[in-house]
Amino acid sequence: MVCLNDNDSSSLNRRIPQQATCATMSSMSKTWAIAIHGGAGVIERSLCPEAADLRIRVLEAVITSAGAHLASGQSALDVVEHAVVQLEEAAEFNAGKGAVFTAEGRHELEAAIMEGRSGTCGAACLLTTVRNPVRLARRVLDQSPHVLLAGQAAEQLVGDLEQVPNDWFDTELRRAQWSQWKQASSEADARGPATVGAVAMDINGHLAAATSTGGRTGKPSGRIGDTPMIGAGTWADERCAVSGTGHGEAFMATAAAHTVAARMAYGGDSLDGAASRVVQEALPPGSGGLIAVDAHGEISMPFNCEGMYRAAADSKGRFEAKIWT
Amino acid sequence: MVCLNDNDSSSLNRRIPQQATCATMSSMSKTWAIAIHGGAGVIERSLCPEAADLRIRVLEAVITSAGAHLASGQSALDVVEHAVVQLEEAAEFNAGKGAVFTAEGRHELEAAIMEGRSGTCGAACLLTTVRNPVRLARRVLDQSPHVLLAGQAAEQLVGDLEQVPNDWFDTELRRAQWSQWKQASSEADARGPATVGAVAMDINGHLAAATSTGGRTGKPSGRIGDTPMIGAGTWADERCAVSGTGHGEAFMATAAAHTVAARMAYGGDSLDGAASRVVQEALPPGSGGLIAVDAHGEISMPFNCEGMYRAAADSKGRFEAKIWT
Repeated sequence: MVCLNDNDSSSLNRRIPQQATCATMSSMSKTWAIAIHGGAGVIERSLCPEAADLRIRVLEAVITSAGAHLASGQSALDVVEHAVVQLEEAAEFNAGKGAVFTAEGRHELEAAIMEGRSGTCGAACLLTTVRNPVRLARRVLDQSPHVLLAGQAAEQLVGDLEQVPNDWFDTELRRAQWSQWKQASSEADARGPATVGAVAMDINGHLAAATSTGGRTGKPSGRIGDTPMIGAGTWADERCAVSGTGHGEAFMATAAAHTVAARMAYGGDSLDGAASRVVQEALPPGSGGLIAVDAHGEISMPFNCEGMYRAAADSKGRFEAKIWT
Repeated sequence: MVCLNDNDSSSLNRRIPQQATCATMSSMSKTWAIAIHGGAGVIERSLCPEAADLRIRVLEAVITSAGAHLASGQSALDVVEHAVVQLEEAAEFNAGKGAVFTAEGRHELEAAIMEGRSGTCGAACLLTTVRNPVRLARRVLDQSPHVLLAGQAAEQLVGDLEQVPNDWFDTELRRAQWSQWKQASSEADARGPATVGAVAMDINGHLAAATSTGGRTGKPSGRIGDTPMIGAGTWADERCAVSGTGHGEAFMATAAAHTVAARMAYGGDSLDGAASRVVQEALPPGSGGLIAVDAHGEISMPFNCEGMYRAAADSKGRFEAKIWT
């Protein structure tokens, strides 16, 4: 079944009782927090409950796994990478397998990852063969003196990471969206959830963010979006970690992710105050949303469009996965 | 004569008497301000006064022309583009003609331009044939729904802009630096002035910034630096316009240009306070500098390395071109 509009029934905007799923996590004395997203955009409420339910279940599985890893003491950096790998592997989301098609009918992927305490970051763009772009971004962070590498320059770091033919990323849903885009001949018709991401605070209070995307249906080959632009779609420092999703150009023109951190650092905003003001005041209405976590484990997930696939968990027992408000 | 270290005598750190050069400009009642840079980095004081003198004269010519255009009422956006075109055309600076060599012995250019009032921006990277990259960045701003286009995607907007063979960008100086880099086999030996840029406030109080570069000697093909990353090496909003120069990865990891604006917007810093704190506190020592102008026509040009080729002029009669303090 192909569900072009990523629709769902509103019953899936649910909060999962934490007792059943987070007992082990919340028994740890040290605090941690994690949020993930699977894209923001046009998510109509009226159709395709099966598709929405499947995505909610993927989000629940990823957030459960990520929470367990944080509870066991893994670093925020490792956990956001692992969470984004899982979202890349899920064909339901626009990153890795299931990435949207470019204008030319191919896939060009991009990803970024940043560690807050050290300020180290790595990003890769114009990727065509790397199965998990966020793993390559991590290698840029770990192994390269550079921050952003494109195409073959990035793929030289691939090492033992799996490479696949470009059409391995194909899915029926994304091909149908591409066909629809070609008929409309307009990127304005390519709206819909885009991008996956994760932000986390580990039990040492360190923060990290990671984002990965296939971009927008019908984008020209060579267009680079906000995801690999440090400060636009991805940011982490000692105060907060942020991953954005939506209309990339709006995030770039407003340095959206960095603005959340700057409002906290220089304006004294709370995490939720900063994140909400960026999404509701700086970004154009309908352009997307973001997830953010601060060094106290607070989580904020504002968006200014129909919906955002998102989930959050923490060591206090929070466990939720939502699409709409 | 090849001057590998971009050296000079300190006598060129001079302030030009404004009466001789700015009489026409300062007779205008409306205020304007402009600053330009030709790169920051290792600029030793002991050698090559001829090379330094030539660069100072280029800076003086460009700032004079730019000031006259602002005084005549041209927009900040048009003027920063024009100033950067002139700096690209000057073979003495690492942008356009005179760009450094990549590891492979070619040239890969990048540029960005941003208008402060509207927040519109355009950038291009991985360019190999466009004579004036900042003109192409302007076309991305004017003609594309995207912010950052790479390689052929950007060059599809080239229209009537001049294209040249890649070796047209060659100069004796940059080839010698590349040879030196190959012998050292280390990017650490590729320090030296990089990047050109301009920031301006026009007589309507609008701000704009533009930056252009050949990157770093010996960079791998596919490395994207801070110049085309909005918020890292280039930024403009209604409060300030910023163009950075130096170790690009440091500017990216600190969102340096946007941080200047954020300190002003949320922390209440003055332009000079914000710019100086970014350069002296956020960026690593020795990593570079930036030029910035605010909506009152104040100019700041801090750097944390040996020197920065820079010039400034305004409607009050300021006219200076400097290398060191």
